[in-house]
Amino acid sequence: MSYTWNIPTKVLFGPGKLGTLHKEAAPGKKALIVISNGKSVKTNGSLDKLLGELQQWGVDHVIFNKIQANPLEPTIQEGVEFGQQNQCDFVIGLGGGSVMDSAKVIASMIPQKGGRVWDYVAMGSGGKKPQTEPALPFIAITTSAGTGSEVDAGGVVTNPVTNEKTAFFGKMPVLAIVDPELMLTVPPKFTAFQGFDAFFHNAEGYISKGCNEAGEMVELTAIKKLAHYLPIAVADGSNLDARTQVAFANTLGGYSMDVSTCTSEHSLEHALSAYHQELPHGAGLIMLSLAYFATFIEKHACDDRFIDMARAMGVIDANKPEDFLTALKAMQEACGVADLKMSDYGITPDEFPKMAKNARDSMGPLFLFDPAELSDEDIIHIYQASYR
Amino acid sequence: MSYTWNIPTKVLFGPGKLGTLHKEAAPGKKALIVISNGKSVKTNGSLDKLLGELQQWGVDHVIFNKIQANPLEPTIQEGVEFGQQNQCDFVIGLGGGSVMDSAKVIASMIPQKGGRVWDYVAMGSGGKKPQTEPALPFIAITTSAGTGSEVDAGGVVTNPVTNEKTAFFGKMPVLAIVDPELMLTVPPKFTAFQGFDAFFHNAEGYISKGCNEAGEMVELTAIKKLAHYLPIAVADGSNLDARTQVAFANTLGGYSMDVSTCTSEHSLEHALSAYHQELPHGAGLIMLSLAYFATFIEKHACDDRFIDMARAMGVIDANKPEDFLTALKAMQEACGVADLKMSDYGITPDEFPKMAKNARDSMGPLFLFDPAELSDEDIIHIYQASYR
Repeated sequence: MSYTWNIPTKVLFGPGKLGTLHKEAAPGKKALIVISNGKSVKTNGSLDKLLGELQQWGVDHVIFNKIQANPLEPTIQEGVEFGQQNQCDFVIGLGGGSVMDSAKVIASMIPQKGGRVWDYVAMGSGGKKPQTEPALPFIAITTSAGTGSEVDAGGVVTNPVTNEKTAFFGKMPVLAIVDPELMLTVPPKFTAFQGFDAFFHNAEGYISKGCNEAGEMVELTAIKKLAHYLPIAVADGSNLDARTQVAFANTLGGYSMDVSTCTSEHSLEHALSAYHQELPHGAGLIMLSLAYFATFIEKHACDDRFIDMARAMGVIDANKPEDFLTALKAMQEACGVADLKMSDYGITPDEFPKMAKNARDSMGPLFLFDPAELSDEDIIHIYQASYR
Repeated sequence: MSYTWNIPTKVLFGPGKLGTLHKEAAPGKKALIVISNGKSVKTNGSLDKLLGELQQWGVDHVIFNKIQANPLEPTIQEGVEFGQQNQCDFVIGLGGGSVMDSAKVIASMIPQKGGRVWDYVAMGSGGKKPQTEPALPFIAITTSAGTGSEVDAGGVVTNPVTNEKTAFFGKMPVLAIVDPELMLTVPPKFTAFQGFDAFFHNAEGYISKGCNEAGEMVELTAIKKLAHYLPIAVADGSNLDARTQVAFANTLGGYSMDVSTCTSEHSLEHALSAYHQELPHGAGLIMLSLAYFATFIEKHACDDRFIDMARAMGVIDANKPEDFLTALKAMQEACGVADLKMSDYGITPDEFPKMAKNARDSMGPLFLFDPAELSDEDIIHIYQASYR
């Protein structure tokens, strides 16, 4: 057993925690608040709550409100320039994974001398330029329970010209607020998509070659909680206890990525949504998941790991790896997402060879953590078997 | 569920990790290395290993080698002055809990203007002076699996004049190395004492009013591992896997203290070793433990919690809180520490009223986290029932 745990982010977890932000030391004098291009943080009151906290701090702010789902590099670059022009000295991301990822990238990029976001992206056709200046302090306030972005250093950026959806490595948030009250208004469909993203961070982490006992601890805890509480949160979004448990599992999924690393399911999904930006990341993962995990089960890559996960999901007498697939299917049915169709998002089977190449080119490193090697044929087969 | 997770320490965990220290950025130019007044780090090679790492860094160092078990305030103060005189700009603690605690206090105290260690102690007759200057960076390298001090902010200091053994609140280590290879030479008796210290950090955390789901996760994981692996590590100190599992549980115990908080068992033990400095902390905890936990079981303070812990300890069909006491006794027998006697350390029953008062005066805040209120009579009864 060997691992590195390097997660300096202070986490304030629990219902109502956004209302305690003013008790923390303000990390600067002028905040760049990054939110989505939608309306939710305005209509559900979370932006007003945040502004009230900033007022108690007595700090100034500007708002950048253009981040789309699966955020595009030019949008994030615009946010960087907006923050520079406004001389912000710290960044707050208030939103889901797309917003937090973008805000994290913006916080890292504002102080850099020269170049744009894509020049600093570490994978695919990214420029791999090193960050020479320290990032601005970044506070992540998550309004969804999915990405765990509030406790990791990665930001997923889509290049719309090259159709690459890959990672920018920024700095960990100095502070994360995980307040399940901010999640009460997430619609059932997105609750499920996001919750399954959290589930797969943990499940991939558990079968990853990078796994270790610190990872196992957080992953099995999260898998158990999601299997039980995600269907409840989907069925009744106002159930604060279920929201809280799902939010906790989501943050554990962030730890899992930090300490164990995801596997290539995430690479395969990024290739889907890189070409079809309207496909939610969690929905793409759900579509791929049964065929993806079945491939490793057929290879007998790590039978015991699948049995462990099935047991954590409530199949107490699980004794074969296929029990995990049965439990996963049942969980998807319980969350109303067992019949998602790629064709509903305009995906066609002739794209699969291109996507298989894209998955390796844009997010190749994750394949190294797979419990067995995937050939190009395996990847195309996973796409085909997942197609409806 | 609500919690604050504020543990910025980067942890390098695993056999051989001390040999990777030079790959981290050096936090300064001149290290104060704090070690014990014994010989172990010199004879087992870990000090030489550390010096080799510093050489690769190209940093200077001085060594302070006077820390005793249950370290005394004047000794720690001497270390502060030694570090000041030598103009050290960071501190490394290489040793067990006493050494890491002392080094942590020294790292906090070197930059302070005026006053001595006791002036800054937060509890009992400590001066409660605020630290106005930022602490020096501190690296904790643990050679024992017990205190979890490598991932917490507390340092236990004994005042030999007032017989108070209480806490100084310093800064978290910037880096912790938990390398089980450094623990291979710990003798069986101390392996057991230290391992039970780790066990009680987790068990107290699990019954603590401060407990929450993040705490539960680390505590049940650690309790399970210690119940299984501590007897193996005691029986065969050269078993690196058992040492590794116990070391992991020890670090989890540090997290438990950070996120859930210990209960008053630690206050009661500190009163024992405050008056009898030769009593190892872990041995004192073992002596008190059965009567301590039985008191809460009699009060039906948290029956389910005890059943959970018994199950984690391998009593799969546990269904009553007393099953925890049975499992704890069996674990103590398996580790050869079921027959420790207070009288062997010169403790006499007429000291118990004084110790009960000392426990509250020196370490009062922990009583607030007990799952049921302990009266003075309860405390004296625990001491008496534990006396042999």
